[in-house]
Amino acid sequence: MTEIALTALAETLPSTVPFVGPETQERAMGKQFTARLGANESVFGPSPVAIAAMTKAASDVWKYGDPENYNLREALAQHHSIAPEHIIIGEGIDGLLAYLARLLIEPGTPVVTSAGAYPTFNFHVTGYGGKLHTVPYVNDCEDPESLIAKAIEVSAKMIYFANPDNPMGSWHSANVVNSLIDDLPKSTLLVLDEAYVELAPVGTAPALRPNTPNVIRMRTFSKAYGMAGARVGYAIGPKKLIAAFDKVRNHFGMSRISQAGALAALSDQNYFDSVIEKVQISRQQITDIAQVNGLEALPSATNFVTIDCGQDGRFAHAVLQSLIADGIFIRMPSIVPMDRCIRVSCGDASEMDAFAKALPTALKAAQII
Amino acid sequence: MTEIALTALAETLPSTVPFVGPETQERAMGKQFTARLGANESVFGPSPVAIAAMTKAASDVWKYGDPENYNLREALAQHHSIAPEHIIIGEGIDGLLAYLARLLIEPGTPVVTSAGAYPTFNFHVTGYGGKLHTVPYVNDCEDPESLIAKAIEVSAKMIYFANPDNPMGSWHSANVVNSLIDDLPKSTLLVLDEAYVELAPVGTAPALRPNTPNVIRMRTFSKAYGMAGARVGYAIGPKKLIAAFDKVRNHFGMSRISQAGALAALSDQNYFDSVIEKVQISRQQITDIAQVNGLEALPSATNFVTIDCGQDGRFAHAVLQSLIADGIFIRMPSIVPMDRCIRVSCGDASEMDAFAKALPTALKAAQII
Repeated sequence: MTEIALTALAETLPSTVPFVGPETQERAMGKQFTARLGANESVFGPSPVAIAAMTKAASDVWKYGDPENYNLREALAQHHSIAPEHIIIGEGIDGLLAYLARLLIEPGTPVVTSAGAYPTFNFHVTGYGGKLHTVPYVNDCEDPESLIAKAIEVSAKMIYFANPDNPMGSWHSANVVNSLIDDLPKSTLLVLDEAYVELAPVGTAPALRPNTPNVIRMRTFSKAYGMAGARVGYAIGPKKLIAAFDKVRNHFGMSRISQAGALAALSDQNYFDSVIEKVQISRQQITDIAQVNGLEALPSATNFVTIDCGQDGRFAHAVLQSLIADGIFIRMPSIVPMDRCIRVSCGDASEMDAFAKALPTALKAAQII
Repeated sequence: MTEIALTALAETLPSTVPFVGPETQERAMGKQFTARLGANESVFGPSPVAIAAMTKAASDVWKYGDPENYNLREALAQHHSIAPEHIIIGEGIDGLLAYLARLLIEPGTPVVTSAGAYPTFNFHVTGYGGKLHTVPYVNDCEDPESLIAKAIEVSAKMIYFANPDNPMGSWHSANVVNSLIDDLPKSTLLVLDEAYVELAPVGTAPALRPNTPNVIRMRTFSKAYGMAGARVGYAIGPKKLIAAFDKVRNHFGMSRISQAGALAALSDQNYFDSVIEKVQISRQQITDIAQVNGLEALPSATNFVTIDCGQDGRFAHAVLQSLIADGIFIRMPSIVPMDRCIRVSCGDASEMDAFAKALPTALKAAQII
């Protein structure tokens, strides 16, 4: 008997993963992180109402979840004042991006994104054989004009655009996004990743116009709602494209506990508002800590702050390494010149104290290297 | 702006789903089922230790799950006395079947299964453009000989074989399965779905030989472990094929709560054993109820019993419809002659009583139709 051959496409795919998890690093170091500030998780957690709902659902976990995600879909439809047929719920935005790539990408299909933007999108596009074309960030922002120009140049099937952006925390106004939508080539789908949009200033998210045929918007319970570990994301788009997810998705893929938790979290908008406030406070704290250390924090519309370490990528990487060794889990952008920065998620007092304490040492250590 | 075109393959896929969920039927009927006996869920639930672990994990759900599933993978490796590199954990067997199809199936790739076997496997094969070839059940059992013969005839890339079988509850001995493995064409992968194998008699599961290059075995926490709603499955296979899942899987796709629950469930083998006993009792109860009503229950190595209603598919369907209307959720095989049967999941006393009470009426109603 011989090995079973993978498809020609699968054979070409690397076994690398988009992100290394903090647990992997903890196992390698033989110790736990003091402050978990690398994955833009929300240490403020989900609403107590959501935790109660998940606890209750745990006893019911012998049942499969509702494959229609009916209750959550209806609640989201009401929350956004749109028809439920415009919404598809999936296993996080990552899961939805995978389904979307499967629906639209064939070997060679051109796709446009920004160099240094969300790597999991690239992972899925490449995973279906799509050809990625990138444009550079401009002033630490994704650049709508060059995205559109490149999409026209290569006849792109998709443009990926995160607003606000990860890893830089930068954002564009709803007006800019609407201009981008107006300028889309007619056969190009805009994948508008709004994972962080609830944390952005009013005027960042364009009004929902879910009938727009070539825009799909991605939202999540992983960030502001504090439920990253539950894997609940959703997409808003035109009914026909949304219905197409039923052709390929893992219909019974959603955890019943996660369904219950997300529904409860959505219902507790007071808690949600309190998280927004805590994030704003923490953003200011990170900014202040950077300043005290002679560094400049970039403006952020997310639950993290990207800090310019003032030198090159090698220096920022040394700062990151030192912080990690000191128990502070953070990440950093991968591409020049954004790799002069480190990216620090918002946290509570204890995380902020730990970061404030560790940063000066890390900067000193990096200067010596 | 125009609609965005799906890939040629996606365009051909139907929007039908492999299964309609019981919640969909409840919404249509405007009432809840009294007894949920249609999806082979385990009403005996997960271990209290697992429920406690999930409750504890709910407070930690702001963290992404470990993308390596390290703790669960190590525990499963120990449980099965194999190296962890032979194990991949995913979002239920359904999720793993989707990844496997993606790794192996290209448009036109021939695949062999039994007509009337698990439809979600077919959904994923067809979803990647594979060509399904079917062989009939023989005496309500999947038939290894005809599966092999067909695989040779069509140069199949995969054979799907569930042992024990769903929807019939039938099974083959480990010796028969080992013969099937010995007879595999060298370029054919056996997908051995063992979702129910823990519920089968000793001697049903062949010894694990995970280095066998063309066998992958699927296991789950959805059945005997009573955690269908948590979406935790795993596959055991040769290291290279297992590693290939990392090329395509949703690395952060597992719920952190589910990871914790499965780990705890695995640790409580006393509870697991008590479920096996309860399932055996319930199988006998369903068999007795059938007999009292003049029907023959098929032998079962699973947590459900398939009952021969003694007439044709139209009659069995009428029985099913009547039971559903009476609040008893069940399903039935889809293919002649197995569609003479209804399939009833094991349950506790209250479910058994409800079924026993509803069946005579359903049989009478079906006679009239």
